[in-house]
Amino acid sequence: MISLKFKLISHKIELMSKDKPLILVTNDDGVTAPGIRHLIKIMKEFGEVVVVAPDSPQSGMGHAITITDNLYCDKIHSEDQDFEEYSCSGTPVDGSNSSINVIYSGTMSAAVEAGTEGIPAVGFSLLDYAMDADFEPTTEYLKKITKNILNGNLPAGIVLNVNFPKLKSKDLKGLKVCRQAKAHWEERYDKRQTPQGRDYYWLTGEFINEDAGEDTDEWALAHGYVSVVPIQFDLTAHKQINQLKDLNFEH
Amino acid sequence: MISLKFKLISHKIELMSKDKPLILVTNDDGVTAPGIRHLIKIMKEFGEVVVVAPDSPQSGMGHAITITDNLYCDKIHSEDQDFEEYSCSGTPVDGSNSSINVIYSGTMSAAVEAGTEGIPAVGFSLLDYAMDADFEPTTEYLKKITKNILNGNLPAGIVLNVNFPKLKSKDLKGLKVCRQAKAHWEERYDKRQTPQGRDYYWLTGEFINEDAGEDTDEWALAHGYVSVVPIQFDLTAHKQINQLKDLNFEH
Repeated sequence: MISLKFKLISHKIELMSKDKPLILVTNDDGVTAPGIRHLIKIMKEFGEVVVVAPDSPQSGMGHAITITDNLYCDKIHSEDQDFEEYSCSGTPVDGSNSSINVIYSGTMSAAVEAGTEGIPAVGFSLLDYAMDADFEPTTEYLKKITKNILNGNLPAGIVLNVNFPKLKSKDLKGLKVCRQAKAHWEERYDKRQTPQGRDYYWLTGEFINEDAGEDTDEWALAHGYVSVVPIQFDLTAHKQINQLKDLNFEH
Repeated sequence: MISLKFKLISHKIELMSKDKPLILVTNDDGVTAPGIRHLIKIMKEFGEVVVVAPDSPQSGMGHAITITDNLYCDKIHSEDQDFEEYSCSGTPVDGSNSSINVIYSGTMSAAVEAGTEGIPAVGFSLLDYAMDADFEPTTEYLKKITKNILNGNLPAGIVLNVNFPKLKSKDLKGLKVCRQAKAHWEERYDKRQTPQGRDYYWLTGEFINEDAGEDTDEWALAHGYVSVVPIQFDLTAHKQINQLKDLNFEH
């Protein structure tokens, strides 16, 4: 679940220097991860970039909020830097972000957080977890999606969950708007013992995709497409409201 | 956001001793919180109870997953105990859970986790954060909802988010099935300095309810009802899929 993933929050499409939008770039892999460096480079073509990222990897933190700890936020200084960059403690927001993983994803939690405040946002994740992962094939699609969002084409109340398969540019088939595949994790606990004899466990598990649909993100990724899933943060199962009333849940 | 909250996962409605379902009770306030003791007492009327709860409060952890730390899980032994109880480290799952708080809630993350595995689940939260909060008014409603779920009346693919206002029994108006109110947190960062001169911040904020609808959980709670919101873990904004295609997001 640890990935070289990155995330863009297009932070209040404000006109900074006349016509440049302010773009916040963050991730949960830390400021030094290769993914965020690639994203910064591309976003600088579109606007004023501010980078705020954790001082160490935070994968798997989901919507954790630091309320009982101090938060640190230090400005990073380097001579040839033409954007602001901060390294922060705390729990920004993990994983592949496809399918059910969206609910555990630090990346998507950051995007959703922006969305709740009405800020256009998108989470990007490359399904290559190697330190020398090749981000170049993502470039073309990062640009297309960013342009579309800056043109005001993102519907209100949603954020985008974009996942890239590990493929070379020539093998990528394009963007595909899809739904979240129905899937779950079959968890397993690997039992160990401390030298002092106390039991402890490591969490492991297997991803189970229950969904054969060809309109899902898992299908798209397995077939060479970049998956784009519109994500909502109204979790209400609206269709089931009347069903629950009929089932006497109010009586 | 720290609450005396509790949560019930009706864990695989299996027949244990002939006709008793197995009910997992957990929370994010720790095994010693008053809310979980109340819930255990009531659930024992309905089935075989297993308690698994954190060894210290975990509010605000959301869908955090412990993947980089050891997990401990110790059985609690006491002489007159007729149920199994475990105290665990790690990051179970906070807050009022109404409205947008559902996405930050440890309570609801646990319920959703059960839901992804097809296990009927419900999260309960009392909006009284005092150590001597009165849980007695919740009893009647805990029983009604539990009976309804054990009767098989919970639709597939959803879990319930139940919130209780801080009211006496005679002032509670009943259960109300509702939708999640549209709201967000206006975050503020309280800046301090360490004795060594390094800046740090405490996260504070204000809850902004943008939603005047009378069919929302916030309305119900403000008007004396116990709110019941059906929650889905398919986060896809299905209606927006075609809209994004029309907006050329695939091109």
